[in-house]
Amino acid sequence: MRAVDVIRAKRDGQELAPEQIRAFVSAAATGAWPDYQLSALLMAIFLKGMTAAETAVLTRAMADSGKVLDLSDLPGVKVDKHSTGGVGDKVSLVLAPLAAACGVTVPMMSGRGLGHTGGTLDKLEAIPGFRVNLSEAELRAALRTLGCGMLGQTAEVAPADKKLYALRDVTGTVESIPLITASILSKKLAEGISALVMDVKCGRGAFMKTLPEAKALAESIQRVGTANGLTVRTLITDMDTPLGRAVGHSLEVIEAIETLKGNGPEDLTALCVRQAELMVELAGIPDAAAQVRAVLDGEAVLDKFRQMVEQQGGDPRVVDDYSLLPTAPNVTPIPAPQSGFVADIDPYAVGVAVLALGGGRQTATDDIDPAVGVIVRAKRGEAVKAGEPVFEVHHRGDTGVREATDLLRGCFRISDESPPEKPLILEVLQ
Amino acid sequence: MRAVDVIRAKRDGQELAPEQIRAFVSAAATGAWPDYQLSALLMAIFLKGMTAAETAVLTRAMADSGKVLDLSDLPGVKVDKHSTGGVGDKVSLVLAPLAAACGVTVPMMSGRGLGHTGGTLDKLEAIPGFRVNLSEAELRAALRTLGCGMLGQTAEVAPADKKLYALRDVTGTVESIPLITASILSKKLAEGISALVMDVKCGRGAFMKTLPEAKALAESIQRVGTANGLTVRTLITDMDTPLGRAVGHSLEVIEAIETLKGNGPEDLTALCVRQAELMVELAGIPDAAAQVRAVLDGEAVLDKFRQMVEQQGGDPRVVDDYSLLPTAPNVTPIPAPQSGFVADIDPYAVGVAVLALGGGRQTATDDIDPAVGVIVRAKRGEAVKAGEPVFEVHHRGDTGVREATDLLRGCFRISDESPPEKPLILEVLQ
Repeated sequence: MRAVDVIRAKRDGQELAPEQIRAFVSAAATGAWPDYQLSALLMAIFLKGMTAAETAVLTRAMADSGKVLDLSDLPGVKVDKHSTGGVGDKVSLVLAPLAAACGVTVPMMSGRGLGHTGGTLDKLEAIPGFRVNLSEAELRAALRTLGCGMLGQTAEVAPADKKLYALRDVTGTVESIPLITASILSKKLAEGISALVMDVKCGRGAFMKTLPEAKALAESIQRVGTANGLTVRTLITDMDTPLGRAVGHSLEVIEAIETLKGNGPEDLTALCVRQAELMVELAGIPDAAAQVRAVLDGEAVLDKFRQMVEQQGGDPRVVDDYSLLPTAPNVTPIPAPQSGFVADIDPYAVGVAVLALGGGRQTATDDIDPAVGVIVRAKRGEAVKAGEPVFEVHHRGDTGVREATDLLRGCFRISDESPPEKPLILEVLQ
Repeated sequence: MRAVDVIRAKRDGQELAPEQIRAFVSAAATGAWPDYQLSALLMAIFLKGMTAAETAVLTRAMADSGKVLDLSDLPGVKVDKHSTGGVGDKVSLVLAPLAAACGVTVPMMSGRGLGHTGGTLDKLEAIPGFRVNLSEAELRAALRTLGCGMLGQTAEVAPADKKLYALRDVTGTVESIPLITASILSKKLAEGISALVMDVKCGRGAFMKTLPEAKALAESIQRVGTANGLTVRTLITDMDTPLGRAVGHSLEVIEAIETLKGNGPEDLTALCVRQAELMVELAGIPDAAAQVRAVLDGEAVLDKFRQMVEQQGGDPRVVDDYSLLPTAPNVTPIPAPQSGFVADIDPYAVGVAVLALGGGRQTATDDIDPAVGVIVRAKRGEAVKAGEPVFEVHHRGDTGVREATDLLRGCFRISDESPPEKPLILEVLQ
């Protein structure tokens, strides 16, 4: 199989044969094709697309390029949840213990933050001692005793995806529905799960800016996941305003715990509940909605979170004492210039503000300050008086304060009338 | 200027700014961008195209990436001729001395053969002693004393083209009108010429298989050459049957000399005369047609060829003694299976047959046997009797004979009626 023949076929808009796709993926993992051929093919795929059948083969080949967990010896239906990422999205921290407390087995493999979006692994690591680099044995132990384990992608998982992702980043081939689909689902297939709740974020704070784009990705994930034997429920949810009130690692951990305590923001709670219901349904547990409600209203879910933190080396006392989390020494309010209703907040600007404060990564090797962040004191639709804070900036001395406050001052709009309600969950595909 | 931004702009179908194109070309020449970014951009250019304005900037930048000759101190208008390559195309060997004998100054930079097409440099080197690696000083001397010099592209000429051409070959991005245009014309601009006769071959033996493709390339060359200050005449000529009768290096040298002696095949002679007329016109010499005819009928043109061979280290006695050229030890005829008219000969198959005999290159580093080749004894439209040869195969022992004879037996068609006449020169753009 010559690389140039595969490139030419895709360049000419042909559907690649499964063995051509497998040769490409294998070559990406082993280095058998030079990078310039991989990147030429990535650009051809970007511009000519892939059918669902091609994407399904690509996804499976990428999963099979590395270690694939077999969790069939563990009891229960293994269900994970994945989000395409947004601003203030701490759903996974709530969802893993919530679904596990309902009886679902949740092997949750998450990512790091990059650019304006945060990552679940980084948020977990704000908890003193929390380790996300679980070995397979540790994950199995966690799943067996607790029903959930949260971990990062190891070097053994989908090495072809790692190679191709790095190349896509520098060759302008990131925003491709088939390539995004394969990248997400290959890692999920490698986890040994049989069902997945997928949250495709849509709006200015998300990767997919418009509903048609989000829908295209959602449908692709739904189709390709199904073709590879996963039962998938895909939500398209609003990311045109920050989710919840907290953005920044420590602040988001606190908000997640508050949500588990029943005191979370309305939008975040609703989204966690809906996703938990879907996970419980997928696990074949009856009366999902009632079950999730009961668990969230009880104490068991907080215990589950405590046990999970402890199991992964973290300090479980954070649940009752937030001062154990890293705290920013300075807090500066951003006041409303006039009274009225908050009509709009651009989540992208909020994400970039946190990045400027040191709470994010420009490049994959940057260090993160987990203490800094932004609290949205007045969310979209809420009333605010002139001089009252719209945001609270949690910062460390002067670091990034000028840039962050400039961004935050310019990213919201106040109007005399209450803005029309916007649904949080735009669509659920099944 | 970030590579990824240039790639994304082209990927999205934007017209690149001149400084973006120059950054790309400079990075190709210096290695400032890694190959995987160059090849992603090449694929984006392949699939999204370039305007004539972009191609003109690309061409000039590629010329300027290396040494650009300044021949303005030499007398006369400097005119070159270039062909996109075909089977049996020995026009340059006739044209350089013919145009020079008419008073044109001809600095002719040619290429090597690859695949089924032969290269002018390889043909010249069939002449014992002939050197094509002229220094600038040697070229100047040749132009001043003889009016013509034939040489290969040195490493100093258009290094960005060399880099990009090598990458295109392995990334499926060869057949792109803007990239082909820039590759051809950048090297011509670097020669210091002010006018160019361009021969775009069209048909099965050529790079451009159909008239619309050939026309698109011809128009691009015409437009981009003009934009860069060249006066260009572009012919589209038939390459759906071999040109002349000889294919193979020594055999083509002999045919070229015979053409200079007035005994050449009709099609080859006509094409040389037409191109010479255009070159003479471009040089501002009056009565071009009469002038070319007179020179070709006289002895001066043979002298010019002899002097050129001698000037470049070759043995000028080959003009009168073909046995000084490498000769194949074996000759095998391919007979006509029936009597009739030759209705068709596929030039591609003839080219591949010569390649199989050892008279061509599969890869750029292969050695060539200049002695082997094929003589077309019965050209398209000519009558042949059953058992009489259609081809003569000049070979060295068994090397490639089986493959070549199989190819040749299957590549022609004999019919009862004379086939309709086909024009050789399909179009002339100016």
